[in-house]
Amino acid sequence: MNCVEKTKKENLIYKGRILDLYNDEVSLADGSESMREYVRHNGGCGVLAVDGDGYVYLVEQFRYPYREMLLEIPAGKLEVGEKPYDCAVRELREETGLVANDLIYLGVFYPSPGYTDEPLHIFIANSFTQGEACLDEHELLNLKKIKLQDALQMVYDNVIRDAKTVIALLRYAALNK
Amino acid sequence: MNCVEKTKKENLIYKGRILDLYNDEVSLADGSESMREYVRHNGGCGVLAVDGDGYVYLVEQFRYPYREMLLEIPAGKLEVGEKPYDCAVRELREETGLVANDLIYLGVFYPSPGYTDEPLHIFIANSFTQGEACLDEHELLNLKKIKLQDALQMVYDNVIRDAKTVIALLRYAALNK
Repeated sequence: MNCVEKTKKENLIYKGRILDLYNDEVSLADGSESMREYVRHNGGCGVLAVDGDGYVYLVEQFRYPYREMLLEIPAGKLEVGEKPYDCAVRELREETGLVANDLIYLGVFYPSPGYTDEPLHIFIANSFTQGEACLDEHELLNLKKIKLQDALQMVYDNVIRDAKTVIALLRYAALNK
Repeated sequence: MNCVEKTKKENLIYKGRILDLYNDEVSLADGSESMREYVRHNGGCGVLAVDGDGYVYLVEQFRYPYREMLLEIPAGKLEVGEKPYDCAVRELREETGLVANDLIYLGVFYPSPGYTDEPLHIFIANSFTQGEACLDEHELLNLKKIKLQDALQMVYDNVIRDAKTVIALLRYAALNK
């Protein structure tokens, strides 16, 4: 079955700092017409850093959309033209001070494909040295060093809820079981 | 460290069919002021259905934001006031025809907490009977019955990229290893 939807008219609703919103007119595969509301986002990168003693480096921060403190892997937005690998190295250093020697690419994930086009790239850092964190202005983070097994248990207990962090931890555990 | 951000003024930018967009004025923990752009979404539910022969039931559909066909667990949006469990049962039946006898709750996930407040609830269905699918108007899906191990391999190979599907498959595998 051909399910492809074709753009009839792009409608930019809002041009923002971290996202743009569109409401496009589309023609569906069955010939009918519809509208598609969605966010355009340049993408993000996250890094699961695991040291030789089996500790992972997570950051706790207030996430305004949920009005909650969340525990996540270090991550951030891709700058325009930036390579995911470079973004991952940069965000890890900015948020934790860790300077990665090498990163392993786990893949790209689609957070919520019904209404956002964000590509979210996930990496593992197994080898790094400790430098100085340098947060963006107004970026307030608590760095947490946690045993990998305890972090996994927090996934199983649904205490860690951020999708990229859940995926990174579960993929890492599957690779190293 | 207290990192809580307080709303100074809510600004509704756009009220849509599947999402609303806000750009709020907030005061940060360090006393400075900033803006927070984010999507309000009523939430979603997904169901990983696994039968006694070890097959999972996935749906393939065109996702306009990515302009790609994606393979995902059956899922859909929470209606206002609907319980996640009821939504999960309903969406599974609508998209696959499977009538669940019981669902196991895996938890709630936050797809991309920087800019959306969507809660995404994930369930497992181990016990169901086959009924008739009844898709929403213009909903075009291909049902795919795949061996669990093959679906997991598609996660490891980064062929399956949808976050809820990746999380459901990896959590299920971790529960049943």
